Amino acid sequence: MPHAVPSDLVRRLAARDRALEDLGLELVAAGPGTATLRLTVAERHLNFNGTCHGGVLFALADAAFGLASNSHGVVAAGIDAHMSYSAPARPGDVLTATATELTRSRRLGTYRAEVVRADGKLVAAFTGTVFITEERHTPD
Amino acid sequence: MPHAVPSDLVRRLAARDRALEDLGLELVAAGPGTATLRLTVAERHLNFNGTCHGGVLFALADAAFGLASNSHGVVAAGIDAHMSYSAPARPGDVLTATATELTRSRRLGTYRAEVVRADGKLVAAFTGTVFITEERHTPD
Amino acid sequence: MPHAVPSDLVRRLAARDRALEDLGLELVAAGPGTATLRLTVAERHLNFNGTCHGGVLFALADAAFGLASNSHGVVAAGIDAHMSYSAPARPGDVLTATATELTRSRRLGTYRAEVVRADGKLVAAFTGTVFITEERHTPD
Amino acid sequence: MPHAVPSDLVRRLAARDRALEDLGLELVAAGPGTATLRLTVAERHLNFNGTCHGGVLFALADAAFGLASNSHGVVAAGIDAHMSYSAPARPGDVLTATATELTRSRRLGTYRAEVVRADGKLVAAFTGTVFITEERHTPD
Repeated sequence: MPHAVPSDLVRRLAARDRALEDLGLELVAAGPGTATLRLTVAERHLNFNGTCHGGVLFALADAAFGLASNSHGVVAAGIDAHMSYSAPARPGDVLTATATELTRSRRLGTYRAEVVRADGKLVAAFTGTVFITEERHTPD
Repeated sequence: MPHAVPSDLVRRLAARDRALEDLGLELVAAGPGTATLRLTVAERHLNFNGTCHGGVLFALADAAFGLASNSHGVVAAGIDAHMSYSAPARPGDVLTATATELTRSRRLGTYRAEVVRADGKLVAAFTGTVFITEERHTPD
Repeated sequence: MPHAVPSDLVRRLAARDRALEDLGLELVAAGPGTATLRLTVAERHLNFNGTCHGGVLFALADAAFGLASNSHGVVAAGIDAHMSYSAPARPGDVLTATATELTRSRRLGTYRAEVVRADGKLVAAFTGTVFITEERHTPD
Repeated sequence: MPHAVPSDLVRRLAARDRALEDLGLELVAAGPGTATLRLTVAERHLNFNGTCHGGVLFALADAAFGLASNSHGVVAAGIDAHMSYSAPARPGDVLTATATELTRSRRLGTYRAEVVRADGKLVAAFTGTVFITEERHTPD
């Protein structure tokens, strides 16, 4: 795995992301244009049908997308995102989301992410696009 | 407002949705094919840029979609969802998401939701589709 | 209907759009931030199942979106689009797609469009976002 | 390339798809769960800005998705589709779209497709989901 050690910048961004911490998302790996997060599904993540809430699955992929698209040092803001759901996740399931860069120009970047269970089953597939600003991420 | 009092079923579904409670989403109104939720953005909802996390905005709309699409008494599961982001939300902002039914057949239903700030500004626009199962929601 | 007469600019853009003509899409109405197109489904629009091809339904909505988002006089380019399909269209069906502006800032605009059959049935629901350039549309 | 020769079924589906022919899309390769189509951009495919119409790019990817998702012999109908646009295509550009199966259950299947220029540049990225019916494709 090429980028097993998160780059310093991504580690700092993740550390100051309050929603990441609040939802229980852990940064596993990162590199230029990519980031991997992990979530262990708990009771508090469940919807009224007893499976992991679609909003939580989305947040996992979206957070990986946010870190991947900001990994180059420039502030990037989400424009749109799409998710297809293919399998449920249940309490105790360990989910991994890896976002990778499909394409990036001066102003726009598109990323894909897959949310996968520990048994290898695809849970959800995500695509997101960012608007790339002219502002650089500052040291904390 | 026609459905200011949530129907009994939607109220029960919302009450047993752990993610709703965990994220701080409140049920405001519901009726056949529609549901409105509210979120007051707190520090814990913020991303590394200090605005409300895209995943949290999505979860708000997605939860309204989940309640609206299950409001007819039959279990419906999300197939896909799309969100466009148009304005940021900051700590203290009170966000409202109303999901409404665009179309519903025996097997599929499509819903739209808008996330709006208290100043009327559109924050995000959501579209989601469910697969309608043959299982009915049971009394608790 | 407020904008029954297409604005001059939108009429000119539609007139020089080769794909519009090639697909048989007719401009019905337009105004600032909105455009309505019509398609009569013909044999040449059908897929291998004998219903109107999903790509043709998309092109109808997308073309309305393109005209609506360029109606303010500034060149806007599509970033992403999403479509949900809810009912089939068959040869002879007259389809109408109206795109309307949800939100527009200096750099980004989001539009929705619905494709509707003459019997009022919703065939497809579309959402698209444009990047707004700094270039103005020139007189022909 | 494993599936360089289109399977018989996909070849027959493509042959009776009127929109494919009308738009000028050629079947290049197919196999179980995958299909590749090609389009040479012509004047008639252009939008009012002189680049290939977004609806035509979508139709190319959507047609590959339709063949890939019907390649197993069972009729599958599109539920939703999403496309991100990343680079323009111009007259003379040869575009290739390959759709591949991400996941498929008894009732639903999700596919991704990329539209690529001959110079290797990604033009658009597509995701689509089908509802799988109980009807089989019949011999012509």
